[in-house]
Amino acid sequence: MRRPIIAIPLGDPAGIGPEIAVKAVSSPEIADIARCVVIGDFKVIENAVKITETNTKLCAIENPNDYKENQLNVIPVNNINFADLHIGKMSKMCGKAAYEYIEKSINLAIEKRADAIATPPINKENLKVAHIPYIGHTEIFGALTKTADPLTMFEVHNLRIFFLTRHVSLRTACDMITKERIEDYVKRCIKALEKLGIKNGTMAVAGLNPHSGEHGLFGNEEVDEIMPAIETLKNQGYKVDGPIGADSVFHLALQGQYNSVLSLYHDQGHIAAKTLDFERTVSVTVGMPILRTSVDHGTAMDIAGTGKASAISMKEAIKVAVKYCKSYL
Amino acid sequence: MRRPIIAIPLGDPAGIGPEIAVKAVSSPEIADIARCVVIGDFKVIENAVKITETNTKLCAIENPNDYKENQLNVIPVNNINFADLHIGKMSKMCGKAAYEYIEKSINLAIEKRADAIATPPINKENLKVAHIPYIGHTEIFGALTKTADPLTMFEVHNLRIFFLTRHVSLRTACDMITKERIEDYVKRCIKALEKLGIKNGTMAVAGLNPHSGEHGLFGNEEVDEIMPAIETLKNQGYKVDGPIGADSVFHLALQGQYNSVLSLYHDQGHIAAKTLDFERTVSVTVGMPILRTSVDHGTAMDIAGTGKASAISMKEAIKVAVKYCKSYL
Repeated sequence: MRRPIIAIPLGDPAGIGPEIAVKAVSSPEIADIARCVVIGDFKVIENAVKITETNTKLCAIENPNDYKENQLNVIPVNNINFADLHIGKMSKMCGKAAYEYIEKSINLAIEKRADAIATPPINKENLKVAHIPYIGHTEIFGALTKTADPLTMFEVHNLRIFFLTRHVSLRTACDMITKERIEDYVKRCIKALEKLGIKNGTMAVAGLNPHSGEHGLFGNEEVDEIMPAIETLKNQGYKVDGPIGADSVFHLALQGQYNSVLSLYHDQGHIAAKTLDFERTVSVTVGMPILRTSVDHGTAMDIAGTGKASAISMKEAIKVAVKYCKSYL
Repeated sequence: MRRPIIAIPLGDPAGIGPEIAVKAVSSPEIADIARCVVIGDFKVIENAVKITETNTKLCAIENPNDYKENQLNVIPVNNINFADLHIGKMSKMCGKAAYEYIEKSINLAIEKRADAIATPPINKENLKVAHIPYIGHTEIFGALTKTADPLTMFEVHNLRIFFLTRHVSLRTACDMITKERIEDYVKRCIKALEKLGIKNGTMAVAGLNPHSGEHGLFGNEEVDEIMPAIETLKNQGYKVDGPIGADSVFHLALQGQYNSVLSLYHDQGHIAAKTLDFERTVSVTVGMPILRTSVDHGTAMDIAGTGKASAISMKEAIKVAVKYCKSYL
């Protein structure tokens, strides 16, 4: 089988992005499964190769299809004045540069010249000082692919987690747990699973309160909102189950009982994924015409430039992109 | 070194307790580290040996010190009319019986004839119909050891988790996160760690909101209550840190950065422990004059009597009891 082309925008040039991209792409386990193309400033990539002591030859290509075996393939977007680059330091230049790599990668994917995108971290502060009008990756991908509300899915081992709410306070999250939102979300998640190649996907909805509230004994959200939503969905033919106590739902999904779990609030799913395997938790943005996977860690400015950063998450993000991109073709 | 004596009350005779107790106690890995004494109805134990096809000889002893090697040592509390016992079914008789095994075990520990107690599951409904005036294990242990408010600690791998709140709704848990309660709790937890032999114990307090609220951006509990509590505690010399985002605090503790984590609500710590390793999550009741560990699963009436129940949790509970009981001597 033809190995898919995975576009890798370099991330913030001052963070660990260039180092982990270079490490991951040059590793045999990744080269065996994907044709990775790094989109970024050529000199920055050259420098990352030096820092990480990666024994690999760089080549600049224009089109992903010109991919050369046994080399580090770069589609250059030269937007860094190397003399002004201070690794580990915040800068407007790097925020703008990181955005341009993403933009180029998205265009390649939309034009079907790349099968998926796997992203290293960017720095939200740098985006802001560079006047990029998006908070982060997901917002950029949403805007440039004209997707109103992309869904985030976590994947770690064989666990898939969707999030009903994310960056809101826990009290606000409680308020946002309504029958209507759950119904809408589950439908969108099941559709997203289908797009990932998982037909007839099953979903377990986590409970909000301890032991799902024990029939209203502590907390009414299960009885008032979650159970009616699940009942309606079941009547419509959706393979959805719950609410299942949050202390067992992730374990059951890990055992293969469900294709996915709906986490009701940010930490519910984050604790499960990241405690299970911090480095192998990959974020997948679904519900867009193109597929994007991502590491779920930051730019680690404190260790950038040392070559120490682990590329495990980056490799994992590429592997997940390879796994799912087929169904997007 | 003399192997410690671990008292094991049989649990609910109609549940999987007798089976997992017999399996665990008869396994070489447990016999190598502990002198286990099972407290329960002799015939029920005999039957559990048969069901589980455990090739072991039973002996009835009166005092734990009469322990006989290579046998299954039983201190008989014969309170089951075997003809009336229906395994897998609820009954008043079993609720009363389970309570009496616990009572006897606690007495042995208080009299220093047992070094610790490791408990299989009981059935709360059966306790209730038997008019036992306690909701569950923890309440029985609290009352019979005259401890006002025993602390529950989870242990799984090298992760230790305490709980600021437990069986209340998530909204109520939010309301209960006050500076005063956190200060009081952390002090009690650090003291409990000391009693377990962990001197100068360190504790990380989890955040409540996503990313600990990002300085009040989503949720104010961190700024208003948690941070002031931690500051006060630090000024008093306690080795406490936080709030640390719940998506990384358990990972950091697993990596050895902290001796323990304070979970602010039931599911926060439960998700971490049980997703990491469902069967190896052990509950430890601390802050009492005696040490008690426990499986953290139920009586599994649906598979009781089949011999199928896994004894991993029971073994783990005994191992943790052995590990910590030395500091109680």
